[in-house]
This record gives sequence, structure tokens and C-alpha cells, in this order.
Amino acid sequence: MAKEITSRAENYSQWYNDIVKKAGLADNSAVRGCMVIKPYGYAIWEKIRDQLDKMFKETGHVNAYFPLFIPKSFLSKEAQHVEGFAKECAVVTHHRLMNDPNGKGVIVDPEAKLEEELIVRPTSETIIWSTYKDWIQSYRDLPLLINQWANVVRWEMRTRPFLRTAEFLWQEGHTAHATENEARQEARMIHDLYAQFTEEFMAMPVIQGAKSENERFAGAVDTYTIEALMQDGKALQAGTSHFLGQNFAKAFEVTFMNEKNESEFVWATSWGVTTRLVGALIMTHSDDDGLVLPPKLAPIQVVIVPIPRPDPELVAKAEEIANGLKAKGVSVKIDLDDSKRPGFKFAEYEMKGVPVRLGLGARDMANNQIEVARRDTKEKDNVSLDGIVEYVTELLDDIQNNLLKRAYDFRQANTTRVDNFDDFKRILDTKGGFVLAHWDRTTETELKIKEETKATLRCIPIDAPEEAGICVYSGKPSSRRVLFAKAY
Amino acid sequence: MAKEITSRAENYSQWYNDIVKKAGLADNSAVRGCMVIKPYGYAIWEKIRDQLDKMFKETGHVNAYFPLFIPKSFLSKEAQHVEGFAKECAVVTHHRLMNDPNGKGVIVDPEAKLEEELIVRPTSETIIWSTYKDWIQSYRDLPLLINQWANVVRWEMRTRPFLRTAEFLWQEGHTAHATENEARQEARMIHDLYAQFTEEFMAMPVIQGAKSENERFAGAVDTYTIEALMQDGKALQAGTSHFLGQNFAKAFEVTFMNEKNESEFVWATSWGVTTRLVGALIMTHSDDDGLVLPPKLAPIQVVIVPIPRPDPELVAKAEEIANGLKAKGVSVKIDLDDSKRPGFKFAEYEMKGVPVRLGLGARDMANNQIEVARRDTKEKDNVSLDGIVEYVTELLDDIQNNLLKRAYDFRQANTTRVDNFDDFKRILDTKGGFVLAHWDRTTETELKIKEETKATLRCIPIDAPEEAGICVYSGKPSSRRVLFAKAY
Repeated sequence: MAKEITSRAENYSQWYNDIVKKAGLADNSAVRGCMVIKPYGYAIWEKIRDQLDKMFKETGHVNAYFPLFIPKSFLSKEAQHVEGFAKECAVVTHHRLMNDPNGKGVIVDPEAKLEEELIVRPTSETIIWSTYKDWIQSYRDLPLLINQWANVVRWEMRTRPFLRTAEFLWQEGHTAHATENEARQEARMIHDLYAQFTEEFMAMPVIQGAKSENERFAGAVDTYTIEALMQDGKALQAGTSHFLGQNFAKAFEVTFMNEKNESEFVWATSWGVTTRLVGALIMTHSDDDGLVLPPKLAPIQVVIVPIPRPDPELVAKAEEIANGLKAKGVSVKIDLDDSKRPGFKFAEYEMKGVPVRLGLGARDMANNQIEVARRDTKEKDNVSLDGIVEYVTELLDDIQNNLLKRAYDFRQANTTRVDNFDDFKRILDTKGGFVLAHWDRTTETELKIKEETKATLRCIPIDAPEEAGICVYSGKPSSRRVLFAKAY
Repeated sequence: MAKEITSRAENYSQWYNDIVKKAGLADNSAVRGCMVIKPYGYAIWEKIRDQLDKMFKETGHVNAYFPLFIPKSFLSKEAQHVEGFAKECAVVTHHRLMNDPNGKGVIVDPEAKLEEELIVRPTSETIIWSTYKDWIQSYRDLPLLINQWANVVRWEMRTRPFLRTAEFLWQEGHTAHATENEARQEARMIHDLYAQFTEEFMAMPVIQGAKSENERFAGAVDTYTIEALMQDGKALQAGTSHFLGQNFAKAFEVTFMNEKNESEFVWATSWGVTTRLVGALIMTHSDDDGLVLPPKLAPIQVVIVPIPRPDPELVAKAEEIANGLKAKGVSVKIDLDDSKRPGFKFAEYEMKGVPVRLGLGARDMANNQIEVARRDTKEKDNVSLDGIVEYVTELLDDIQNNLLKRAYDFRQANTTRVDNFDDFKRILDTKGGFVLAHWDRTTETELKIKEETKATLRCIPIDAPEEAGICVYSGKPSSRRVLFAKAY
């Protein structure tokens, strides 16, 4: 089975597509650019969603649901927003079909044209702020800390499963505040929450930083991003949190009476992560044998395979171990399928990235042992059945930590400080990865670098130290390095 | 606050709208027929969703996600389905907007017309069975037991929050089976699961039955329904489960090789419940003071209000009680808002249907007592603080049971057996409710009854005893009574 995967060295892009397909994560659909998220891929998304939802609620947020459709005129209300989002989107123009009078099938009923076209939401700032206008009158109504789990549509030309699809699933937080300071704090708190989630649960280290003016969200004053590094040396933007200032409040006339009984515009943030995280997860940890999943997001954490077949004695022992693990909150599958050989099963669970595999044979049992295989390093050990539950739960922690360390080490090894444009280009063409370089803080330079190297300014890292230097492109003075990379 | 609600006797429909608004469940949106589900309303939906999701998973189902859009031609592939669903729906015809060359704002780019229009899914049988064709080759690929949580759009002309909206949230199960028997069993198992859910969690008794041919889902061989009775004597269809035969397999050419290596068409079911359940919940239990929620679906089960204000000693005691309740899995809110008087707070929690309210005053505490108010009966008691946690957890069970009993008694009192058409019309015009009557099993009679009385055939109850009789309309022989009512 593993042979069916293209190796990373041979063709990284094909390797990714092979994993998505062979691990049963997603499929193409009959609709251009839209994928079907298959049960195993969706189970990973559910793990991501449930954990984030818990973290949002712990920080005082509540969920709500706003309409899928946005009246066309709403998009024009915020000047920058319309430039960013009123481009490639799905436009609903009619509300009825009718039988084709000239033949079979159905046609659009020309009589059922909408007075104003509706846009399938590419993001919901406009419809939400048009609603907040009714919800906010006084400082007592603030803050509003609302999140939505939803589907959105952006009519992308070149799509790839999870990484870029016309329809995708996401969460979008939209908060409203009485003061600038509180809104800025919210945007930064979520920025930290995202970084904590990706590192602790996805075992994916990220660089936290601010976007340049050119890369900011359309309508934002500041955009904070978390940037991860994939195994092919390309960056992936994994989540963004925006301080929106009063831009949307002004566009939708959302004011409130402050404690001094003065009318003020409301301050806003928005923030989101998407099913793209599943793509990031795949590309951070997986290998040429298939998917590798961090235990905290694995739908099945441990699989027990009786060898060579599920005899009653082996099944009883497997169930005993499984029950012990389940009592510790571990998700376990016992594979009782008698139609497939153990070797075939092993390859299948490797492909699906199950973190720990227990192979239980009759001779092992006689020796009070069991074979424990870990997916991350592919190491195998014979382990005593005494204390096997504790052994496995500790191993799961160990795998989680090892994956984070491996990804962190990879990023360290693939982050290069460069001080001139020749080195900048050479590193990008050969080694790839993150490049830390001085930049003169002009959009002009940023765009020229992009044009000449295809690398984009990923972020101005929040922890970049003050350091005098000169811009690698223009030679003008710079006070700190910023992060460049080719990106997804 | 309660005064702001219209009473049921005065105007039932307005009462419903008042509760939706005053309890903060939903709001109208700028998009015709689409509602905004507010945080409190969404929290109830989350409770419903999480419980159903658990029950689906316990019965072997997994979640997946299929595209929002359906190619127009797909709707025509199943002959009955197209009649039912290719009518009022949202049609995407273009994929780009552009700046209006003649002025401000944006217009639809005429160059960006889709080759084939896309329909925003009104239900997903067609897109899912077009996918199943790729997933199913052999009996070893079956059964597929897949569910999806999603939004759907049906361009309804007359809408009401939760009960009928253009966009709504739902789950749709779509299963594929090797045999007719297995598919029929699945459809009936889900039918039972729905009834179990509504009775045990929503405290809403339902009549289980089969739909008549005229009321069946477009494309189904059999439709099973659960029918609830609202307080105004109208029926509400709360969920349906369909045995689809091989209709969609034939339309999308989905075949499999059976164990004898013969090619056969696959057997199918589909089933769903929607955000309409929130409307049903409101109308089953609420009263003229506001929302009444069964404890099992209440976002806040217990609220503790220090009286007259949150003094440190009272707050400490409230927290002690809250922690005791939380340890038992009860969701508790302590209201520390010092800007509102207790009386105002009481009315607010009544409006929001919080099942139990604890009023903790200084004098109460001195007497080792606390005031316990239950929302269902509005009874108040002074209860000893010793064992208060056990008292409240038992009270929550008691409220849950009482609401079910009350709803059951109401249904019993409002279900009438009639034996002639004069009585049939008289009961519907005066008492309303469910009417059990003999029917000759023809669509012709069913439609005439509907035309003359506005009552529809809700279902042929599965537990209706064999009983010789004559059809109330045609006088022809009948072997069992069926259920009629005016309906939402």
C-alpha cells in the first residue's frame, strides 16, 4: 500500500495529493474547486474544531450563526474590503428553476430574478456589522465576543484539497468593543491562542507576527498572523487575527453611548482559522509511508491488531487493554477483520497515521509481551503486558512531544539570516525555508522582492530583536529583521 | 419585562415571535427569509446537535462534509426529486463582481457567467450519490453510514424564525446498503432514535408513523415521521427518515458487486432534523412569562442570584453551591451584576427559561436556607442549605419529567377520535389538536379533506391497532385510524 505514494523527494506536490487520497481524507467533487471531506478527514477537523471551540469559550466567547448570503451592496460599504472580497465570489441572481419547455431537465426561471443579487459569504464582517448595529446602543452592550463556525466561498482559480478550495469550513470571530485598547488586546489574545493551539495540539511551531500593510486583511488596521514552515521549505499562513479599528463601525454606522453619555463608534476585531489547518497538519508531520498525526488530534490514537488472526483469547486480552486505555481517555480501535493479513493492516494504519499500533500474537502473550510500534519514528519494541496501559499513555505524550521537537528542529535548520540580496536569492533557490532579512518597510521594496524572487513578506515577527541593519534590497536603514518565504 | 410578551390566548403567533425576540433566541437579518441565530438560541441548538451527534456515533455513523453547491443538471436525474426540490431555490449564475463603470459600488461581471448554474443545496441526495458512485464497488464497501451537519437553502415565501426559514441548519444522514432489508431497518432505527431524542431530551412526546404517498419526501419509497402537538393545537413535523429504495442509486448509476459477484444497485436511506426543533421546543413548553426549557437542553440549568446584592459572604456561599453543582455536571451561572435589582433579574431568567433559580439572601443564610424557584410550575420553596446540591439535581430531573408529562397530558387531552366528517370538521374548528379518523387510503380523499378543512394527513401511526371502520370522507372501508391535524 505504501508503495502507492509518491515520495517527497520525487514530487512533493504529488506526495501531498497521494496522502490526501490514500489516507481517505478528502475527494474531489463534481463542483469545480469544492472538495468532499471524507469521514477520516472530517474526524480530524472535528478534533481541531472541538479543541478551539473549548478555548474560545474559556476566553468568554459564545457562538452564533449569521446568514450565508450577503446583499451585494453591503460589500461596497467598506472601501478597502470591497477591493479585497468583491472579486471572485459566488453570485446568486435567481430564486427559482422551472421545467425546460423545450425539452428535458430544468432551466432558471427568468421571472425569478432577484432585485438585488446575493453574494455567498466570502467572510462575514459586512452582514455581522449590519446586525451589530441593532444590538449595540450602550457601553453596557459591550463587549460582544461572538464566534461562528461556518462555510464560506471564494472563487479560487487554482485549488488544492484543504490548502485552497472554493468552499471551505472555518470559524470566524467578530468582536465589538468600547475602547481601542480592549479591541487591540482581544486581537493579540486570539493571536496567542492560535499559536498555543497549533503548538500544543497540532505539534506545529509557528512564528507570530504582524502583516505588512500590503498583506493585511482588506479592511483591517493591523493583521496578526501565525506562519508555519512546511517540509518543502514553503511557508503556510495558518491563522490570522485582525484589529479592524472603527472601519466597519463607520461603514455600518454602529455607535454606542459611552459612560459619559457621548456617542462613539465601536471598535472591532475579527479572526479565523480554516480547514486549511488539516493541510498544514499533513505537510508538517507526514512521511513517505503516509500520514503522521499528533496523538492529540488523531481520531484513532491506538490500534490493536491480533496476530495472525482474532482468536478468542487474543481478543479478550485486546479488549482488556483497550478498556484500560479508554478509561484514561485514549481512543482505541481493535481490528477484528479476519479477511486481511496483519502486514496489510499495518501498512493501512501507517498510511492513516495512527500514532501507536499494538501487535498482539499468541507467542507474545505466552511471554507476557506485546509488540508496540510508534508511527512517528517507526520504532518497534516488545513491551511487558504488565503496566502496558501506562506505557502506552506515556508513549502518546512522548510522540506528541517528539513531533513538535522534530518540526521545531526542522524549522530552526531551515531558517536563515541573510544580509544581502544575492544571498537572499541564493537561499530561496537552493535551501528554501524562512529567510530573516532587513527590509526598509516600504511596499515598493516588498513588491519588487516578490516580483524578483516569488518570496512574500510573511510577517514582522513580534519577538524580533531591535538590530541595526540595511534593507537587503534597497540598502536603506532598517531596525529589525522580518520574515520572508515562498508560501502556500 | 414579562409584560412585554403578548399572551397565548390573545395572539399565539405574536406570543411565539415575542419569545423568540425577548429571550434573545433569533433576529431577523437583512436577507429576506434568513434569520440570525443569536448566542442564546445557538447554545440551545448546540445542545441539540451535540446530543444527536453522540447518538448517531453510538449507532455507528460518522460525519463528513459535501459541497454546498449542486450542479443544476443533478437535480433532474431523479424524476420525483426534481419535482420536489427544483423549484424555489437559490441559483448561482456568476462567479465575479466588478466595479461599476458607470458609478459607485459593484455589479455582476457579465463575463463571469457559469457554464452550468449551481444550486445552493436544498438537500444533498444528488451531490452525495454522485460521490458514492466512486466510493462503492463491492459489498465490502457497504454499509456507508454517513451524516452531515450543514446549512441548506429553500426559497420559502412565508418565513418564521426557526419554524420556516430560507436558510436553516440541519443534519442529513445518507446511508448506503447492500440489501433492502438492511436499509429499511436503518430508516426505522433512526425513526426510533429521533423519537427517543425528542421525548428524553426535548421532553416532547411524538407520534411515530409513516407518511402517505402524497406527503412523502420527493424520491422516497417510504417516509417515516415524528409528529408533535403544539400548544395551539397544531401539529409540527419534527423529523423524517426516508427509505429511498434504489431510486438514487439508479439515477446516479451506483452499483456494487454482491457476494455472488453479481452487480446490483445500492439501497439507500436519508434522514434529517433541523433548527426547526428549536421552534418546536419553544412552542411545546413555554408560557406567558417567557421561554420554558427542559433542563437537559438548557444552556444555563441553574442561576444563583445573591439578594439584594452580591456581598462577599453571599458570593462565597453561591460559589460553594455552584462548585458542588458543577461537579455533578450541572451548568450554573452566578449573577453578580450589581446594576440590576433582583426583581428585574428574576423576570429576565424567567424569560430565558432557566429551569431553577436560587435566591440567596443574608437572612436566608442566617437561617441556613435558600429560596428555590422552579421555572416550569413557578413554585418557590425555602430549602435547607444542607444537601442543597442533591436537592437541586433531583429537582432538575423532576422538572424534566414534569415537562414531558405535562406535554403528554396536553396531547392526550387534545387527541380526538372522530367517526364522521361533521365531527371531523367541528373538532378541527373548535378544539383543534390531533384527530384520529378512518381514511380510505386514497390520495384523492386526502386532498379533498385538506381542501375542505386545511387539515393534512400527518401520518399513519405505527402503533395504530387494526380496527374495522369507514372513511370519514368517502365512507369506504378502512382497517385502521390515521392522524390528521392542521400543521406548521
